[in-house]
Amino acid sequence: MSTAFRTHDEASPLRVAIIPDSFKGSAGAVDVAAAMARGVQDAFDEQGTPVEVRTLPFADGGEGTLDALLGAWGTTALTADTTDALGRPVRARYGLSPDHLTGVIEAAEANGLPAVSDVPLRPLTATTRGIGPLVSSLLDAGVEEILLCIGGSATTDGGTGLLAALGARFLDADGSELPDGGGALTGLDRVDLDGLDPRARRVRWRIACDVTNPLLGDEGAAAVFGPQKGASPEDVRTLDAGLRRLADVLAEASGTDVRDLPGMGAAGGLPAGLTALLGAEVVPGSRMVADVLGAEELLSRADLVLTGEGSFDGQSLAGKVVDAVRRLTPADRPVVVIAGRVAVSAEELRRSGITAAFSIARGPGSLEQMQEEAIPGITWAAYNCCRLLANSFTRPVHP
Amino acid sequence: MSTAFRTHDEASPLRVAIIPDSFKGSAGAVDVAAAMARGVQDAFDEQGTPVEVRTLPFADGGEGTLDALLGAWGTTALTADTTDALGRPVRARYGLSPDHLTGVIEAAEANGLPAVSDVPLRPLTATTRGIGPLVSSLLDAGVEEILLCIGGSATTDGGTGLLAALGARFLDADGSELPDGGGALTGLDRVDLDGLDPRARRVRWRIACDVTNPLLGDEGAAAVFGPQKGASPEDVRTLDAGLRRLADVLAEASGTDVRDLPGMGAAGGLPAGLTALLGAEVVPGSRMVADVLGAEELLSRADLVLTGEGSFDGQSLAGKVVDAVRRLTPADRPVVVIAGRVAVSAEELRRSGITAAFSIARGPGSLEQMQEEAIPGITWAAYNCCRLLANSFTRPVHP
Repeated sequence: MSTAFRTHDEASPLRVAIIPDSFKGSAGAVDVAAAMARGVQDAFDEQGTPVEVRTLPFADGGEGTLDALLGAWGTTALTADTTDALGRPVRARYGLSPDHLTGVIEAAEANGLPAVSDVPLRPLTATTRGIGPLVSSLLDAGVEEILLCIGGSATTDGGTGLLAALGARFLDADGSELPDGGGALTGLDRVDLDGLDPRARRVRWRIACDVTNPLLGDEGAAAVFGPQKGASPEDVRTLDAGLRRLADVLAEASGTDVRDLPGMGAAGGLPAGLTALLGAEVVPGSRMVADVLGAEELLSRADLVLTGEGSFDGQSLAGKVVDAVRRLTPADRPVVVIAGRVAVSAEELRRSGITAAFSIARGPGSLEQMQEEAIPGITWAAYNCCRLLANSFTRPVHP
Repeated sequence: MSTAFRTHDEASPLRVAIIPDSFKGSAGAVDVAAAMARGVQDAFDEQGTPVEVRTLPFADGGEGTLDALLGAWGTTALTADTTDALGRPVRARYGLSPDHLTGVIEAAEANGLPAVSDVPLRPLTATTRGIGPLVSSLLDAGVEEILLCIGGSATTDGGTGLLAALGARFLDADGSELPDGGGALTGLDRVDLDGLDPRARRVRWRIACDVTNPLLGDEGAAAVFGPQKGASPEDVRTLDAGLRRLADVLAEASGTDVRDLPGMGAAGGLPAGLTALLGAEVVPGSRMVADVLGAEELLSRADLVLTGEGSFDGQSLAGKVVDAVRRLTPADRPVVVIAGRVAVSAEELRRSGITAAFSIARGPGSLEQMQEEAIPGITWAAYNCCRLLANSFTRPVHP
């Protein structure tokens, strides 16, 4: 990671890219990025070093992705009245890009587990149907692409609820429509796509997914994720059998066999139905977000990159935002991590390719104190890092 | 603090000066400096950046100064059997430079307040006599200079005990010697210097002192510091009267009037007797230490300076080590503070001239945890600061 440099050139400013994750429990990515930007701007302004600061609130496709995209787009959340995984009315948020060509949905807004944890879980009947109205709203808005974040679901219906909401009809041998939920899929005979909203098949679907579990079997949706959704061992067997039947029917109807595709087991098999019938593409969350936000282009032009998250640890180096930012940044550019907690060894830091990591902690203190002071702490850390650079050295020139 | 630079020149290494205070309660300056050095060396070695790391454990003339000088000299403490402020036997430490030309004494080793806090304080009879054997040991070793650190004393005898131990005789009107302690000085008639060790007058004396209190009156040794040494209001009046009498006698005997000299009120008037009779010079502690250790020469050659202390706060910017290091370093060189606790505002940081300050805290945690992990925490902070520099930029060239 060696770099060649020249002395500071007033004509072209130092380019700083700020592209953090949220600090879970403390601050969203938008506020984190703004806090870092204040510290960076102040430090370089004081030295009269021309600096061009670009902020890009980032996310990894999990919780907070909707807010990150809204922040980057500069649009506010839209809402639609729909139902939760148990069919109870809820108002759910979704996002639309300024050009109205891209929409983003956090499925958990409509089929999330936390939202239904107030009552006994119903793994066999929990449904993705509530996602339908959000999709329809985006289709009505004329989007060409839908980004679907699927983490934290309460459902194991293979996406049949959502597809049914869009007009597909999942039928039993007598031709009557199945009730909602994965439990009923053991009785699935065929799917009728005549009523399926044609717009849903025309738009591009990308599903953010960082797990590689297959749809079926010991590593599948029911066996691995069923229990945390309330499924008993017998429920798991029922749900796995239902999803197996679904896979057969989907292969028949679409010619696409999802049985052996990695990631189809995420979110109760939600990707399976959408992949087979709507041509959805499953992609790693941070890559999807990076692609949509043009992160790579921004990072390729940066002289200095600041990122961060609540806790920078071994986890962070496996597909999380910090790891994605490092991978998308040319190796010869410094990437600095600012985090609430820094829990990596020197060896892990070196392997990660991260240049340096600083905690926002300024001394002894409780987690609560740190969370309360997260925003000023983030600004302070960024300010000190950039004072160190601005007062020590000049801007880089990349080979 | 703008700097001009050139690209890295393999031929001449980056010069890093590491000159920290101790982390009170956690680690001495020697261990702190070594911990910083490990982090600095590792960071630049990884990048193949030639670096010349020089460590200089520092101190401000207060507690820890003896250890800092021993560490910088690479000598071990010597000991002498002597007495404490109440005349009880103690073994006291002192230091000798490798060339045996300079000696250092922490007076509190022989007249300290903590050492006598196990019994009722005796402000009127507490004496500096116990410092005498330490001085004699240094004189026997052939030193040309004695550095005397005087903080934390239990005495208010104007240094008469020490001078008596060196052969001076403080007499009453009948020509008999006064008993030890400031209380007896009201009966002082004259001083007989015939027996005073001539070597004690030949050597150079520097007394580390950061208070400017005069010897006498409302701001004087008895009034300001007497109470914390157990002096009642009446004792204060007696001690002040004794010191006033001493000042008269000293002026008579030496022609030096210490009454209006700043700092004579420190440590129960200890500087007064030594200034008048031994030509001692009172100097700010950090300046004395810097001078003895050649800190200014080291700092003037440094490309990057690391310093630190347990708590970096408003106090630090008033004559403490960090402040001295900044003042002794050319303004265009970065000075980085690593501290257990960083409690300065951005405005204070700017005014201090410190480039950047980083806490060794890596997340939430108690003071105890931080103190236990101080050494690895210091290495980690130095390592990350230098990785940021080594991976971002090249070495400076100073105008």
